Amino acid sequence: MTKKIITVSRQFGSGGRTIAKKLAEKLGYDYYDKEIIEKVAVESGFNADYVAELGENAPGKTTFSYGFEAQGVPGIMNGMSALDFLWCIQRKVICDIADKGRPCVIVGRNADYILRDRDSVLNVFIHADEEFRKDRIVRLYGESDVKPEKRLAEKDKKRKSNYKHYTDGEWGYSTNYDLCLDSGRLGIDKCVEIIADLAK
Amino acid sequence: MTKKIITVSRQFGSGGRTIAKKLAEKLGYDYYDKEIIEKVAVESGFNADYVAELGENAPGKTTFSYGFEAQGVPGIMNGMSALDFLWCIQRKVICDIADKGRPCVIVGRNADYILRDRDSVLNVFIHADEEFRKDRIVRLYGESDVKPEKRLAEKDKKRKSNYKHYTDGEWGYSTNYDLCLDSGRLGIDKCVEIIADLAK
Repeated sequence: MTKKIITVSRQFGSGGRTIAKKLAEKLGYDYYDKEIIEKVAVESGFNADYVAELGENAPGKTTFSYGFEAQGVPGIMNGMSALDFLWCIQRKVICDIADKGRPCVIVGRNADYILRDRDSVLNVFIHADEEFRKDRIVRLYGESDVKPEKRLAEKDKKRKSNYKHYTDGEWGYSTNYDLCLDSGRLGIDKCVEIIADLAK
Repeated sequence: MTKKIITVSRQFGSGGRTIAKKLAEKLGYDYYDKEIIEKVAVESGFNADYVAELGENAPGKTTFSYGFEAQGVPGIMNGMSALDFLWCIQRKVICDIADKGRPCVIVGRNADYILRDRDSVLNVFIHADEEFRKDRIVRLYGESDVKPEKRLAEKDKKRKSNYKHYTDGEWGYSTNYDLCLDSGRLGIDKCVEIIADLAK
């Protein structure tokens, strides 16, 4: 059966986003990555940078702001934390994208879990060893004061905590995905080829 | 680069063994599954059924027998538990198979970890959802007094504990393998095709 929606979850620096982008081009599918952040920003009223920062964050490690209006009347956030509010909006945005029925590739944002009960979804996880990912983030995003291994660990820890909190599952555990690929060992283009073949 | 050794780890009932067998036939590779148990039995002096039962068992849940000889002189097991002794023999048997240099497929027995530092090894993990696996074990191994879901859970719990104990890693976690495939969603033959293509 043709897979109309492909979700690509990925370790930071694994090239998962590049794989997703190339895959969408190869298959002629719509591509959603930063587009989701922009949609969430519009629907939530938050700044896009704030959404990008918080959207894969770990609860408990962030600034909570509760959306109560004055005089004890609940506001639009209905007493939820900013993170929970963003999760709800993000979930709605991803479901809306799926409901459109157009074939697409969606990067990150726990879309594998959000769309888990839908047919014709292919869930992919991309990972690679630390050396491959360190080299990649320095080449793509440049040096920083923080050591590359720390940047990798911090980012993936956030994604793992976020996934655990909202799905009660383990981010990166094989059974959550239809296939998991080591992009460092198999190569970016080979990963694209395997996934594209499965989507047909 | 051609992958000369393919290790196939698998959830119970996922069809991992069938995939490994078909893969070996397709590629013309040697195939090691029960053959490892027989070699370990010969080298350890234990009965093959005992090796099969203990070899993927979880430490602490089994009968420990220490190989001390009389008069305080250490015996062949050198004071190790039967399980640790079997692990050492099993490790040696798998390294010997790899040292032969003949292309092969090895099923289970933590071979992915044992051969982790060797070149040209492709590590695969096969999994599937509970329904697929329940149906499969009942068809293949028949009914039993124990419910299928319990049989699945017990077997996989043992493999997980054994892996944790001897490798300090998490059995089935994506980053331990080059690729992980859901045989229920992708199909047995498609899994064989993907792995065979990667081995070339």
